[in-house]
Amino acid sequence: MSFAALDGNLLGPLFATDVMRAVFSDEARLAAMLRAEAALARAEARVGIVPDTLATAIEAIPAAELDPGALGRGTALAGVPTIPFVKAVQVHLPQDLERSFHKGATTQDILDTALVLQMREALALIATDLQATVTALATLARRHRTTPCVGRTYGQHAAPVTFGYKAAVWCSGIAEVADQLPWLKDRVLVASLAGPVGTLAGLGDKGPVVADAFAEELGLAAAPIAWHTRRAPIAEAGAWLAVLIGTLAKMATDVAHLASTEVGEVAEPYVPGRGGSSAMPHKRNPVSSTVILAAQAAAPGHVMTLLNAMAAAHERPAGLWHAEWHALPQLFGLASGALREARALAEGLEVDADRMRANLEATRGLLFADAVAGRLAPQMGREAAHDLVEHAAMQVRATGASLRAVLANDPALAQPGAGQLLDVAFDLTPSTDAAAAWIDRALATVDRICERLSSKG
Amino acid sequence: MSFAALDGNLLGPLFATDVMRAVFSDEARLAAMLRAEAALARAEARVGIVPDTLATAIEAIPAAELDPGALGRGTALAGVPTIPFVKAVQVHLPQDLERSFHKGATTQDILDTALVLQMREALALIATDLQATVTALATLARRHRTTPCVGRTYGQHAAPVTFGYKAAVWCSGIAEVADQLPWLKDRVLVASLAGPVGTLAGLGDKGPVVADAFAEELGLAAAPIAWHTRRAPIAEAGAWLAVLIGTLAKMATDVAHLASTEVGEVAEPYVPGRGGSSAMPHKRNPVSSTVILAAQAAAPGHVMTLLNAMAAAHERPAGLWHAEWHALPQLFGLASGALREARALAEGLEVDADRMRANLEATRGLLFADAVAGRLAPQMGREAAHDLVEHAAMQVRATGASLRAVLANDPALAQPGAGQLLDVAFDLTPSTDAAAAWIDRALATVDRICERLSSKG
Amino acid sequence: MSFAALDGNLLGPLFATDVMRAVFSDEARLAAMLRAEAALARAEARVGIVPDTLATAIEAIPAAELDPGALGRGTALAGVPTIPFVKAVQVHLPQDLERSFHKGATTQDILDTALVLQMREALALIATDLQATVTALATLARRHRTTPCVGRTYGQHAAPVTFGYKAAVWCSGIAEVADQLPWLKDRVLVASLAGPVGTLAGLGDKGPVVADAFAEELGLAAAPIAWHTRRAPIAEAGAWLAVLIGTLAKMATDVAHLASTEVGEVAEPYVPGRGGSSAMPHKRNPVSSTVILAAQAAAPGHVMTLLNAMAAAHERPAGLWHAEWHALPQLFGLASGALREARALAEGLEVDADRMRANLEATRGLLFADAVAGRLAPQMGREAAHDLVEHAAMQVRATGASLRAVLANDPALAQPGAGQLLDVAFDLTPSTDAAAAWIDRALATVDRICERLSSKG
Amino acid sequence: MSFAALDGNLLGPLFATDVMRAVFSDEARLAAMLRAEAALARAEARVGIVPDTLATAIEAIPAAELDPGALGRGTALAGVPTIPFVKAVQVHLPQDLERSFHKGATTQDILDTALVLQMREALALIATDLQATVTALATLARRHRTTPCVGRTYGQHAAPVTFGYKAAVWCSGIAEVADQLPWLKDRVLVASLAGPVGTLAGLGDKGPVVADAFAEELGLAAAPIAWHTRRAPIAEAGAWLAVLIGTLAKMATDVAHLASTEVGEVAEPYVPGRGGSSAMPHKRNPVSSTVILAAQAAAPGHVMTLLNAMAAAHERPAGLWHAEWHALPQLFGLASGALREARALAEGLEVDADRMRANLEATRGLLFADAVAGRLAPQMGREAAHDLVEHAAMQVRATGASLRAVLANDPALAQPGAGQLLDVAFDLTPSTDAAAAWIDRALATVDRICERLSSKG
Repeated sequence: MSFAALDGNLLGPLFATDVMRAVFSDEARLAAMLRAEAALARAEARVGIVPDTLATAIEAIPAAELDPGALGRGTALAGVPTIPFVKAVQVHLPQDLERSFHKGATTQDILDTALVLQMREALALIATDLQATVTALATLARRHRTTPCVGRTYGQHAAPVTFGYKAAVWCSGIAEVADQLPWLKDRVLVASLAGPVGTLAGLGDKGPVVADAFAEELGLAAAPIAWHTRRAPIAEAGAWLAVLIGTLAKMATDVAHLASTEVGEVAEPYVPGRGGSSAMPHKRNPVSSTVILAAQAAAPGHVMTLLNAMAAAHERPAGLWHAEWHALPQLFGLASGALREARALAEGLEVDADRMRANLEATRGLLFADAVAGRLAPQMGREAAHDLVEHAAMQVRATGASLRAVLANDPALAQPGAGQLLDVAFDLTPSTDAAAAWIDRALATVDRICERLSSKG
Repeated sequence: MSFAALDGNLLGPLFATDVMRAVFSDEARLAAMLRAEAALARAEARVGIVPDTLATAIEAIPAAELDPGALGRGTALAGVPTIPFVKAVQVHLPQDLERSFHKGATTQDILDTALVLQMREALALIATDLQATVTALATLARRHRTTPCVGRTYGQHAAPVTFGYKAAVWCSGIAEVADQLPWLKDRVLVASLAGPVGTLAGLGDKGPVVADAFAEELGLAAAPIAWHTRRAPIAEAGAWLAVLIGTLAKMATDVAHLASTEVGEVAEPYVPGRGGSSAMPHKRNPVSSTVILAAQAAAPGHVMTLLNAMAAAHERPAGLWHAEWHALPQLFGLASGALREARALAEGLEVDADRMRANLEATRGLLFADAVAGRLAPQMGREAAHDLVEHAAMQVRATGASLRAVLANDPALAQPGAGQLLDVAFDLTPSTDAAAAWIDRALATVDRICERLSSKG
Repeated sequence: MSFAALDGNLLGPLFATDVMRAVFSDEARLAAMLRAEAALARAEARVGIVPDTLATAIEAIPAAELDPGALGRGTALAGVPTIPFVKAVQVHLPQDLERSFHKGATTQDILDTALVLQMREALALIATDLQATVTALATLARRHRTTPCVGRTYGQHAAPVTFGYKAAVWCSGIAEVADQLPWLKDRVLVASLAGPVGTLAGLGDKGPVVADAFAEELGLAAAPIAWHTRRAPIAEAGAWLAVLIGTLAKMATDVAHLASTEVGEVAEPYVPGRGGSSAMPHKRNPVSSTVILAAQAAAPGHVMTLLNAMAAAHERPAGLWHAEWHALPQLFGLASGALREARALAEGLEVDADRMRANLEATRGLLFADAVAGRLAPQMGREAAHDLVEHAAMQVRATGASLRAVLANDPALAQPGAGQLLDVAFDLTPSTDAAAAWIDRALATVDRICERLSSKG
Repeated sequence: MSFAALDGNLLGPLFATDVMRAVFSDEARLAAMLRAEAALARAEARVGIVPDTLATAIEAIPAAELDPGALGRGTALAGVPTIPFVKAVQVHLPQDLERSFHKGATTQDILDTALVLQMREALALIATDLQATVTALATLARRHRTTPCVGRTYGQHAAPVTFGYKAAVWCSGIAEVADQLPWLKDRVLVASLAGPVGTLAGLGDKGPVVADAFAEELGLAAAPIAWHTRRAPIAEAGAWLAVLIGTLAKMATDVAHLASTEVGEVAEPYVPGRGGSSAMPHKRNPVSSTVILAAQAAAPGHVMTLLNAMAAAHERPAGLWHAEWHALPQLFGLASGALREARALAEGLEVDADRMRANLEATRGLLFADAVAGRLAPQMGREAAHDLVEHAAMQVRATGASLRAVLANDPALAQPGAGQLLDVAFDLTPSTDAAAAWIDRALATVDRICERLSSKG
């Protein structure tokens, strides 16, 4: 399996997308490191510190010519990949340029900037799937705006809602996290160029100018001061990804339960060969939910690692920086797979409105207990009404009669107008109307978020 | 100790502030619940659903008259505190108002809204200490703008910086998290009023209007749709607090090390009786750093709990909502104590510039190795310069001679102008100038953040 | 709520037992510290280092006379509670004994030993509830040894088991963790007496002898060498508690689902007033499962804190030891409440065998799909049988016919003996017999564990 | 980097050993799955359920012929790797055997048993490095049994110990965790064969016999009842690995600090090219400590995932089982790298006894403050002695005089015999003797553990 299920050929494809895997591949990493070095060369050439030709020479080196295996052996010796990397690159440079390479920079500048470049691509991938998911969920919510459905609390039938309402809650939760993407980009898409101890002193008084130019070359923001050991943005990126996964997991939790045999109100999109069992020929397992819920169980641990890593000593810590490498890319991997599956659910979920209706009736009117008690309260007092209905509910459970029938026979309700009051209380329409009103309100907010996301694209 | 070190009389005062403890006390919680119920009454009275007198009647009930012990026993039975709470409040209401109390609301509305009211107070406390800490660190950074100090990577002397530079990195890291406070408030200061399954159907078509009025009464935002099981903001609040603690822990890690006997560059503010040892009369332990680092070890676990809690089933989960209660208030508690100590450090840290200078000289010039290699590179090539200095450094370690002396004797440097080149390379000024430039830049950003925070106050 | 939901009067009773809360109260902690000091006095008196009368004088001090509030203010100043504690105790001692008090010991000796004494009581409480839970589950498993019940995988009906089988899996999981209690006690019930830096040098060559006597006085094991910064046992205790909670959460997950409206196969024990809703009079929420699942969401975070705390520097760390105080007692608190509820479930779960039977039939024979395919495989090959049944299952879903009927009409089965083969395949007995055999096997192991636990009492 | 730093060619070699990586490779996993299937065939052949030739036919299939890439694509569709795996294997089997393959088993049986086989190999690798580390640390402790060294608490000089004492604490902590390896093997080296819902009903009454034979064929224990959703052992394995890493991290924390420039008491073993800096030619970074401390920051998060995964619903959960795959192998990977580096430290740490001696003297006698106060207490009372020495310590810090000199001038000590008392108090020997006694005691325990480990080998 390789150590991480996300990696390796056997399990990786289930849990992460291929495109996200490509972003964090050895090759992509080396290419990003080369790109950072080239940008450094351009920035330094601007102020005349290195020859103009250096950047082009760096860019001419194909990442594929750098052997990750050999570099890895060097990394295991040196402790960081930059040392063998710098040597390997220099081999490819004309001798007169070699001495200008990597000038003033330190290992962490190149690795952190490369990571930022990878994150930029990774966030773009996530944004795409995120927008598609939100859009599809909004459509789902609108389609089932008034499809009646049981509302459940603590696993128990509670009162009627609509399926669209449930979809709107999912949609709203995911959209609000998506809405923070621009903020997150501001936080993390920041170049790192600060030299050995963060002051870039090796460049004399040209440090800040070169740092700004470096960031500009890469289309990144420049930092006000070194972030070598100022790691909040990294932890924030991890937390954002985990929160995102959490919002998907809320949906997956609901879907897995709604798709369970006894409930049967939805089914994951049918894909031939999906969700089967090696033993049981009749099974149709909720694979998408499974992938998302596995991500939800694993993501918080990685956030914890990133939070741990914030207490980075002085100008570079012995271990806590490396610890980020154990965690951050995996959060992108988990998010990629979870989002792929969430999008598939949002776009293809099979909804069984008949089964929803049947389930609404399964408790013989108990779902309206709250509505009934609410209607009775003005006359008999809140607590008396609550007690009367609670008592009636026990009879429903004991006898199998409907709540309506039990109440109709209750002497306390033997009064003029009671029948009409019950008619109103057992009417589904107020519930579905109320749900629909909230859907409209939620989707209006979602639409504004989608517009913002599109315009920031 | 009580279960949490934050609570209880013996250990609590060390780890959390009294004012923050008051915010999350049983009494404050009950008062906030009453306040939410009163706001509900006002909002419903606006549309004529309940009598105008209800709110006043609720407000007349002193929270102190509700017995937390009795309510606690009721909570252990019922599973949520609201059920005994509602009954206890009704005892205090005129009988004709009793039936209008808590109308349309559900347990979670009152508890979540009360939590939000508590968070508003808690965030205000944090904002105050945060601004004071940032301001004091900015002053510290300015005061030591050019105080030379060793830069350390991996625990090793690396190259010179200034102490002000280190303070500016701390300051910048904390300020940037502070800068997100307005965003966080937008996310979490949102009222909850959604009824049993989130649609507030019990209020008929008046649900959204009442929900908006309820929020307005409390000075909170209204939600586009129920957040009963849309918990991203709660997880985000937790993550923000943990990230904040992480930025404080970065400073505490540095301070504890700088205050260690061998380094001795700073000391925590002297307070008689602080940091002693029951056994060792000469000890002066870094208590502030200890409190902060203990918070740093504990905070990530609580974030994990909040992330776990996001997968909340349907309209209310069986357990995951309650799990938040185990975690979120403790993060505020940990943050309150950590910030109190961080502020004390920022305002009173004792800095020993002489010791810093002595430590700079402890490695006999090795700190300038990077600068020397950088100066030599243009002439002899980057790698050759690196190797030459690396070799000289080994001689320094082996013989006790200074790097300057070793290099002066190196045949490779027996050339005209070499002495002058070394003079320049061993000059501290470029390092301190470079550090100072970054401080100015960082503090300009910090100043803007402080202005924003003050104006949003 | 106080910071921790476990503490405070309003929510605490729901989540932890009163007896466990008493074990970790300020008063109990101070009493345990006094007890450790008295044992130290006895141990030192044995070798003539302190007067024989010291121990009695210490024991004569009522813990209640030590004011936790005043000590807490002293702790906030000093950084550890021992310094004010030592002073407060000395006030109560005759002047000639005062100078012999706390001799050779350090803060951590007293606090860690007190913690161990508290853990001994706490583990005894847990052992009692654990044995009762295991015993009750074994009884439940035996009672429902052959009560047919749906086996579910991925939330889908899979194949028949018995309810006793499910109870046996719960029982077995919990019992195996209980079986490790003696091992855990060996690990953690170890006295700490090692002096300022762990060598007890203040006692000259009498250190080891006094340390052994100290442990003996308290009925604890003596450590081979100081465990001030050798914290594996603390982390192991935390992990054991979290794993225990995990085994309870497995049961609670199943119970909450089985008790859900659509499934309805079990109900939590009926307790008047339990599981109601402030809004919905018909609700009967699974409160026990809720408490357990909330503990499950929160426990792992505390384990993380304890694991973080293991990297304790040198002879005492600045923060990581204190971090344990934030986490370990809460794990005992969470476990106490979760076990109380688990025991209540084990002893009083209401099982609806009729509903189980009805649910078995809900999928019109699909539950036997695996059995049918297994029977057909020898004749037609494993994959062909799997495909045939998979196809038939799709027809069942599409048409509402039973699997038996669909298969009876399949030309592939139009052969002599096919009917008899299907009779056998759709027989529940092999499934229940197989389940019963495993129950017997599992409970035999459980019985051996219970005997071991009883004898070790 | 691939998602996990442990995987991939660029960073993987730094963080995990090649042999451990091989154990968890796709190829090894497939081989283990084939081995499980072959054992199943043998076990079933014993009771005549499948042909005797099946096992040999399975064993004849080279794992290398199964294409992980194709299987991975199938896994992404099916949700588990077993379904494409079973099909791929059947292609390689004679047609008459194909229908007997995988009989009665379910996906989880094969995957969990394969995991157990991998864990057996992984634990053997760990045991080897663990024994070597413990043995080397015992040697180190013996070698420096009386090498005086500063004891440090809260980062401050506290009192003298010996370096051997520190090594003995490391050794003891690691050895005690090693001592639990046999227990852990009993817990986790258990075969899984339980069929679709755990009762192995597909094998009729032969289930338990086949399950026992299956386990026997693989040299594993048989389970009393299915562990498909009884996951304590998996969480325990994870916790054990994280605790092990924690014990290594305690050593690494100390080593990194002792190796820091100002302290300089140890150096990591010299390896040419190791610990350099891409920028700073004089650097010798503690790479081994870095690798260990990075593992320490990341390991707890994975334990959390495994604890989360314990709440596995019914007979197989939708997500929580898969979540284990995200976490458990990485803990083995992290442990492999951390142990490799810990062993290197234990075997090759460079100890500078002269520097230790110099550091002992750096505080001009303050290290003996506790000893002095202890000597004075019998005469002047404990608190008075503590205060006198505390006051003297302040003078030492203020004036630069030695504690001995300050005390000699103190009127309170102007009495006969005071000089001799100070001679004794400032003698290092009692401290080193005390340390040595504990080393002997600790290593006696360690020796017994090593014997046990060797004999169980």
